[in-house]
Amino acid sequence: MKILVSNDDGITSPGIYELAKALSEIGEVTVIAPHTEQSAVGHAITMKIPLRIIKHYINGEFFGYAVDGTPADCIKIGIRNILKESPDIVVSGINNGANTAINIIYSGTVSAAREAAIMDVPSIAISVTSHDVMDFKYAGKVAKSIVKLVAENGLETGTLLNVNVPNVPEEEIKGILLTKQGKSKWDDVYEERTDPYRKNYYWLTGNLIDVDEDLETDHFAVKNKYVSVTPIHFDLTDYKTYEKIKSWKLDTD
Amino acid sequence: MKILVSNDDGITSPGIYELAKALSEIGEVTVIAPHTEQSAVGHAITMKIPLRIIKHYINGEFFGYAVDGTPADCIKIGIRNILKESPDIVVSGINNGANTAINIIYSGTVSAAREAAIMDVPSIAISVTSHDVMDFKYAGKVAKSIVKLVAENGLETGTLLNVNVPNVPEEEIKGILLTKQGKSKWDDVYEERTDPYRKNYYWLTGNLIDVDEDLETDHFAVKNKYVSVTPIHFDLTDYKTYEKIKSWKLDTD
Repeated sequence: MKILVSNDDGITSPGIYELAKALSEIGEVTVIAPHTEQSAVGHAITMKIPLRIIKHYINGEFFGYAVDGTPADCIKIGIRNILKESPDIVVSGINNGANTAINIIYSGTVSAAREAAIMDVPSIAISVTSHDVMDFKYAGKVAKSIVKLVAENGLETGTLLNVNVPNVPEEEIKGILLTKQGKSKWDDVYEERTDPYRKNYYWLTGNLIDVDEDLETDHFAVKNKYVSVTPIHFDLTDYKTYEKIKSWKLDTD
Repeated sequence: MKILVSNDDGITSPGIYELAKALSEIGEVTVIAPHTEQSAVGHAITMKIPLRIIKHYINGEFFGYAVDGTPADCIKIGIRNILKESPDIVVSGINNGANTAINIIYSGTVSAAREAAIMDVPSIAISVTSHDVMDFKYAGKVAKSIVKLVAENGLETGTLLNVNVPNVPEEEIKGILLTKQGKSKWDDVYEERTDPYRKNYYWLTGNLIDVDEDLETDHFAVKNKYVSVTPIHFDLTDYKTYEKIKSWKLDTD
């Protein structure tokens, strides 16, 4: 099995190192990841400037290819110009921080996997729900088992699996649940500060408005120490509203 | 009616100028847009560096607020720190280039409108299907009429309308159609070049694989000279696959 591993925390992050190590046990892994951290870049792609590919070594040994672009860039150029053929699966992560509920929209980790799905390659995004992860080993084990499940069962073209692992010791994990995207979102606050030249600048902060109360949602599942697996896709059509606004009189007069 | 106008081509683009002008006829417009072009940045947001807000003047007259971030940043900081209250509607555009089919995923224009939807504000993204738009006037007229329709009928929370206008003279437009996101996507090609230091670099190019053949899709509708209106949302759950993979045995053993 040929496995392309990417992420959004950058090629030097401990999460991608653990992921590559775990998946090497079941397939032939190629790491193609951003040269620098690309959190919250969403599905950005680089068009106006060119990309470069840099070989990345750990202790003198080749580890993977660093691309000076976004996670989605890594998948595109990785498949087209580095691998030159589609891998059997793309796995993105292991991300520092939950990619549940609204975070899916902003996530570079998920966008790497989504770009793979767009390119008809089965894919998985995997995250641990903390920015201060102590140990990626259990998440690596989860990644391995989900990759095996996808290899056995296949995945519909255009679908990816978004996996979130609670940041607790393995023995506290209650199980793995199939979930839907939650509805929790951020109440953004921009902290206003003044620079030495008396000009204002603004830092994004905020609090999560936690509205999910159902183990069938990603956000609530991980809060309750379950691993969450959510199938997502890139058809954004709102079919309910589509039916509803059929009655609108669409013209410019 | 309070209208927040944004885009991804930047505050100096002719498209946003025409949009602000058209919508001024039916409401109180505030322009809050990226300081520089932000095409294809998707739903990126700025977290690791602070933002600045710059007042933008045209011929000495105040036109709007430029934010040195992404389209989604403009909506967040625009509503939280500039307007300090939700507008009645957000309109993003008028974009240079189609935001149909897979382009929706990469689009900064759509992401600005989507960020508004996340913040419970009704919103519209509007684009003209060419990077060489001759005249934004008809698209401005379309924007005005769709804003009026949304004001009259309301829009479900979490839904936005993605509007695409063919780049043809108004008299050739055949009508306005309600559509779904098409399935056409890019066959990416990275052109490989060599710099003066004999290092390789790669430019993204590519051809669209045009698979849409139904006037009910955005891409085919605009190709056939119809204005396309697609309701989209940010629930990415793939419900079909959700049902299908209920039978999978989810565990790590």
